Amino acid sequence: MLPPKSNFSEWYHEIIQHAQIMDIRYPVKGLYVWFPFGFKLRKLVYGKLREIMDREHDEVYFPALIPETELGKEGQHIKGFEDEVYWITHGGMDELDVKLALRPTSETAMYPMFRLWIRSHADLPLKVYQVVNVFRYETKHTRPLIRLREITSFKEAHTAHRNYEEAEENVKKAISSYKEFYDSLAIPYFVIKRPEWDKFPGADYTIAFDTIMPDGRTLQIGTVHHLADNFAKTFDIKYETPEGDHAYIHQTCYGISERCIASLISIHGDDVGLILPFDFAPHQIVVIPILYKGKEELVMNVANRVYDRLKSMGFRVVMDDSDDRPGAKYYRWELFGVPLRIEIGPREAESNEAVISFRDEKVKRKISIEELTEDSIKTWAEEMHERLRRKALDSLAEKTKLFESISEIKEWIGKGVALTYLCSSTECGEELESLAGAGVLGEVLELPEGVEAEKDGSCVICGRPGKLNAIAKSY
Amino acid sequence: MLPPKSNFSEWYHEIIQHAQIMDIRYPVKGLYVWFPFGFKLRKLVYGKLREIMDREHDEVYFPALIPETELGKEGQHIKGFEDEVYWITHGGMDELDVKLALRPTSETAMYPMFRLWIRSHADLPLKVYQVVNVFRYETKHTRPLIRLREITSFKEAHTAHRNYEEAEENVKKAISSYKEFYDSLAIPYFVIKRPEWDKFPGADYTIAFDTIMPDGRTLQIGTVHHLADNFAKTFDIKYETPEGDHAYIHQTCYGISERCIASLISIHGDDVGLILPFDFAPHQIVVIPILYKGKEELVMNVANRVYDRLKSMGFRVVMDDSDDRPGAKYYRWELFGVPLRIEIGPREAESNEAVISFRDEKVKRKISIEELTEDSIKTWAEEMHERLRRKALDSLAEKTKLFESISEIKEWIGKGVALTYLCSSTECGEELESLAGAGVLGEVLELPEGVEAEKDGSCVICGRPGKLNAIAKSY
Repeated sequence: MLPPKSNFSEWYHEIIQHAQIMDIRYPVKGLYVWFPFGFKLRKLVYGKLREIMDREHDEVYFPALIPETELGKEGQHIKGFEDEVYWITHGGMDELDVKLALRPTSETAMYPMFRLWIRSHADLPLKVYQVVNVFRYETKHTRPLIRLREITSFKEAHTAHRNYEEAEENVKKAISSYKEFYDSLAIPYFVIKRPEWDKFPGADYTIAFDTIMPDGRTLQIGTVHHLADNFAKTFDIKYETPEGDHAYIHQTCYGISERCIASLISIHGDDVGLILPFDFAPHQIVVIPILYKGKEELVMNVANRVYDRLKSMGFRVVMDDSDDRPGAKYYRWELFGVPLRIEIGPREAESNEAVISFRDEKVKRKISIEELTEDSIKTWAEEMHERLRRKALDSLAEKTKLFESISEIKEWIGKGVALTYLCSSTECGEELESLAGAGVLGEVLELPEGVEAEKDGSCVICGRPGKLNAIAKSY
Repeated sequence: MLPPKSNFSEWYHEIIQHAQIMDIRYPVKGLYVWFPFGFKLRKLVYGKLREIMDREHDEVYFPALIPETELGKEGQHIKGFEDEVYWITHGGMDELDVKLALRPTSETAMYPMFRLWIRSHADLPLKVYQVVNVFRYETKHTRPLIRLREITSFKEAHTAHRNYEEAEENVKKAISSYKEFYDSLAIPYFVIKRPEWDKFPGADYTIAFDTIMPDGRTLQIGTVHHLADNFAKTFDIKYETPEGDHAYIHQTCYGISERCIASLISIHGDDVGLILPFDFAPHQIVVIPILYKGKEELVMNVANRVYDRLKSMGFRVVMDDSDDRPGAKYYRWELFGVPLRIEIGPREAESNEAVISFRDEKVKRKISIEELTEDSIKTWAEEMHERLRRKALDSLAEKTKLFESISEIKEWIGKGVALTYLCSSTECGEELESLAGAGVLGEVLELPEGVEAEKDGSCVICGRPGKLNAIAKSY
């Protein structure tokens, strides 16, 4: 049994283990093991992400080890990462001449190679991505999928362009790709431009996707960085323009980690377990024969027929013909978030019917087995997706409020996102952070559906013209 | 232009870079970058390997970092790896309390968890695998795909069974899986039981797949280990038997690295580039319109029609309608190993015909475009596979010879594999190694097709009864 989801921190801790996402018992803090079930979910979620990336990017793989000499080249970048880099000092019994960093992110592994790959304007844009493990020496409280020492599934894309504007166009494309990805997961989000003091080390600016977790804290689930020519200058990456000049490239990079799965679990799940959108569920449909003495054969015949039929349609279907009583079977598959349950008892078997129910509803419906067509199942899946999306949006809207005074913001913090107006000065931002006891996430570029607020207003600190900003406690 | 393949070492070095498999210019010895094309090839090859593994194994992911305390538990194991483990000593500015090893292989990451996963006989067999990066501090000459400091694509499977015999059954299954995999790549192999002194550290015995590279040196392209209860005793992994007793599990593990791709490139390639089996070629078919002035439209119409037709059949097809002259086009796609080339000039376009040729043959054939059906292409692909297989087998047979005297063996070493008979004593094995100046690969369990030799004979050193052994210089 899980703790109630209202006790989110414990619920999360337990569901990760019990729904067999990750085994949290690995003997090093901040490192976890992907169970087979969790790995299947990961594969489906990252399959979607790859599908989106593959349209305009090439997948590549760069080494996990970065020499200190490269990692240290970009001043802002190394300053941002030096406290959390794992250093390899020894190979076997030998001390290494040049220390090697375990990649915390791959700019400094990739860009020395970009210098070799890019010669002329014809080589641009260059758009690549990789899905890799990256490492951060986290000293804060670690949590599976959220704050890890080995991020096992970091999708990082890196691009090069002819100038600032073309790179900015790509920032917009990246944002729209990430929107498509999170829409497919029915996860709502804010699109927020991080304040100056919180941008990616080495970036010109950073745009983040934030969602709200059930406990009211926000979770950053994706970032898109415009790097301008900052790294190009450091790594001396130039191209020949059509006019024969040599110019620095402009770059972007953007990443999504397994936090996407953390949000999927946390936002849709309930007191009894996971709730997974149909397209991402490792088991999409469970067939449960209700076996009464003397009627086993009748029921199993129909159940097998239904199973085979669904299987042949290409659905990921599982049959639970174990000896457990129905309640135990329901409980098990609810825990794993199976979207569609099909029960077949003797009465149903006799009349060629089945009882269907969806994981996110309490409703049972009797249908004729002929109604189990590919089209009808896809339609039901879309309806369920829409219900999940709607529910998640409602919950996010409830946790988001616009305020005009510091005292109201202070009271709200911990419950969700406070929206308010801030001018662009760092002083006002920092004062708000210290008064509210929470972080300024930045200027809200896009609100989730159902949340409305004007984009412009008076700075809550100084009264000068300001922009809509989000303030919250974050993971 | 590549150096001739007869100069194998340079040819290999150049083809890896020029055919865009890996970029060898990364600024750390023994680390390389997968280019987009190389990564596509990797994805196809590992897709096949995963397909085979998925039938009976669950995919999982275990952490890359192993605490010194776990890695050091199994005495033989740590002795085998201690010279080549990368040690992480610092996180940020802090020295770590317990040093962390970058996994050289994952027994000691997995088995402490197996101890928690396995309770009863009902949990057995347990069969998992992962495809991960592993790290070895190689001090010898490094080489892309062959000897690396980061093995980027290590497929390692780990299984647990009730007793020695059931584990041995699984060793046989693993061998047959690996045979299926290498057969699909048209790579011939010996199946060889490694001598005692060369088995995996911690194993009861090791069986390896060895192939012969064009320069006559062997390449180990897969290993299967019976671990007996060696690790189970170290990590205290017991299960409850049906009778209620507690017994140690017996284990196996088996691995394949990106050496599978090294063998694919080396064995099939020729002086002008890669030759890839149809199923694994990132580009399976190239359509080359031969454009003459005034006839462009006619030719392009037919070429586009052919391209669309092949695309709709699901083939990975590319159109080269660049302005390059035909020779340059041929050269480019030959380098990338495209199996099927379709040329369409004005004459062909007029008569609704095309000229087809296969990468491994010098033959051109004119066919009617209607003959380009899914079935005929699949048949041609199978014929090409058979030609590649046959050619590789012939070449391997030429490089393999049975000898009865040390002097003959000595003369042969460097040209290929010397077969001879050895008794089971370590002394005779070591003496042969020192006399022949090459390594004893071990007892040959299976010879490649076309190589014949009796399994039993007199030991070439002492004359006592012996088994057929293979001796060679290896990568």
